[in-house]
Amino acid sequence: MEVFHKIVDIQNELAEVRKNGKKIGLVPTMGALHDGHASLIKTSVAENDVTVVSVFVNPTQFNDKNDLKNYPRNLEADGRLINNCGADYIFAPSVDEIYPEPDTRHFEYPPVSTVMEGAHRPGHFNGVCQIVSRLFYITTPDVAYFGEKDWQQIAVVKAMVKDLNINVKISECPIIRDKDGLALSSRNSLLSTDERAIAPTIYKTLVASIDFAKNHTVQETHDYVVENINSVNGLKVEYFSIVDGLTLQDVATWDTTPYVVGCITVYCGKKPIRLIDHIKYKEQ
Amino acid sequence: MEVFHKIVDIQNELAEVRKNGKKIGLVPTMGALHDGHASLIKTSVAENDVTVVSVFVNPTQFNDKNDLKNYPRNLEADGRLINNCGADYIFAPSVDEIYPEPDTRHFEYPPVSTVMEGAHRPGHFNGVCQIVSRLFYITTPDVAYFGEKDWQQIAVVKAMVKDLNINVKISECPIIRDKDGLALSSRNSLLSTDERAIAPTIYKTLVASIDFAKNHTVQETHDYVVENINSVNGLKVEYFSIVDGLTLQDVATWDTTPYVVGCITVYCGKKPIRLIDHIKYKEQ
Repeated sequence: MEVFHKIVDIQNELAEVRKNGKKIGLVPTMGALHDGHASLIKTSVAENDVTVVSVFVNPTQFNDKNDLKNYPRNLEADGRLINNCGADYIFAPSVDEIYPEPDTRHFEYPPVSTVMEGAHRPGHFNGVCQIVSRLFYITTPDVAYFGEKDWQQIAVVKAMVKDLNINVKISECPIIRDKDGLALSSRNSLLSTDERAIAPTIYKTLVASIDFAKNHTVQETHDYVVENINSVNGLKVEYFSIVDGLTLQDVATWDTTPYVVGCITVYCGKKPIRLIDHIKYKEQ
Repeated sequence: MEVFHKIVDIQNELAEVRKNGKKIGLVPTMGALHDGHASLIKTSVAENDVTVVSVFVNPTQFNDKNDLKNYPRNLEADGRLINNCGADYIFAPSVDEIYPEPDTRHFEYPPVSTVMEGAHRPGHFNGVCQIVSRLFYITTPDVAYFGEKDWQQIAVVKAMVKDLNINVKISECPIIRDKDGLALSSRNSLLSTDERAIAPTIYKTLVASIDFAKNHTVQETHDYVVENINSVNGLKVEYFSIVDGLTLQDVATWDTTPYVVGCITVYCGKKPIRLIDHIKYKEQ
């Protein structure tokens, strides 16, 4: 496995790889890797000739400076995990390498980029599109792997790929959970023991709401989830949106569309740590 | 030679080409091809395994709706010229194919994108970056060919390529002139016989100004060019800027930088037709 910090170096390497007709998989990450990332990397290794894992905490997608400052970083442990998963290359550039000048491009894909996370984290998806479009130019992947935990992010990246006609397949990989159901997230490492103990309530409530939904309306199910989670001291729902799984538009009833997903963001603890999760009520 | 109108078709074709390790040259054009374009295409054919010529009148780079409406179009003649030059593929998409939705990306590369054409054609270079960045995603060229007639455009495209780390070489090809010195331009076909007769004054004056400059200041040379061209009934200088050939910043004296170019835009005739040209006073 080789580690590249400079764009020109990995571009030269991958140009050779590509000339040899090899298929390139890209797993874009912000580091602080966990089993969720490992599952993405292993899938890419299985499906491609060459796998590149990028590790870059992208400042332009953080709307909160403290969140950026506190975001966990551990390139050494990340390198071991990536190596163990069988990837070929790590691309770990500096911020100056990626953004020697500010990125002035503005990406807008309403409604998928403007609802939920788009509404609560202004500029977040714009930053995601800025970095992902750059990584696609730099690594020219055949397939790029994204985790379903960031449900809305996949919809936004797909909208961008379609909009810009980038010749890359976006592969969605299932969310990976801890034994108690908590969705794996790099931010989980920032939870105190007490906070970690209450965080599984989020997924437990989402699972319970599937049964509840069977004889309740969308609005009643929404309120059930929010009230149950908020009743735990230390948890505070930012939003819970029950939406069409593709357009991410709110659904009025369970019959509005064939694909219904509930997306939630919860603040946990005193710092607080922002956790996201989702549940599928109806699948396509 | 094959003609593609759909993005997915040319992407599939070029993905195969690329898998076979072949080198791809791209010549982006707006059609209405002349010998200047032919020289770009022939250079690409000589230097690459496969040459793609795109023919697309990009609406987002026109700040003037009438200019867009009147811009000459002739895909049949263009096809013959491209075929005669030995190119392999024409990519001629519709506007809806390229922009099913508005492009919200904003590209800013001051000073090269903000002076001269950037100042006089608001949004022009933003549109150029929108289409060129898309063409690069669509055709994944190793080398892209641009004519030096659009001097500033090359600087802007290079700034974008550097900014977005696109792995493509930008190849600049010399301006091609008619026998009487007029820079070849698709817009020349819009000139009346009378207008065509006076248009060569632009280049003749620029050439004469090289001698004039030897014992006059930058400002005096500027005024000499503007006054001489404006003295011709039917010609009106929009701007004449004597600038550093790389940064495109105005130079105060001939010794300010080692590379000095004079860039001019002239309105010709009654419609009027906007013609651009340039002259090198000092080369690197």
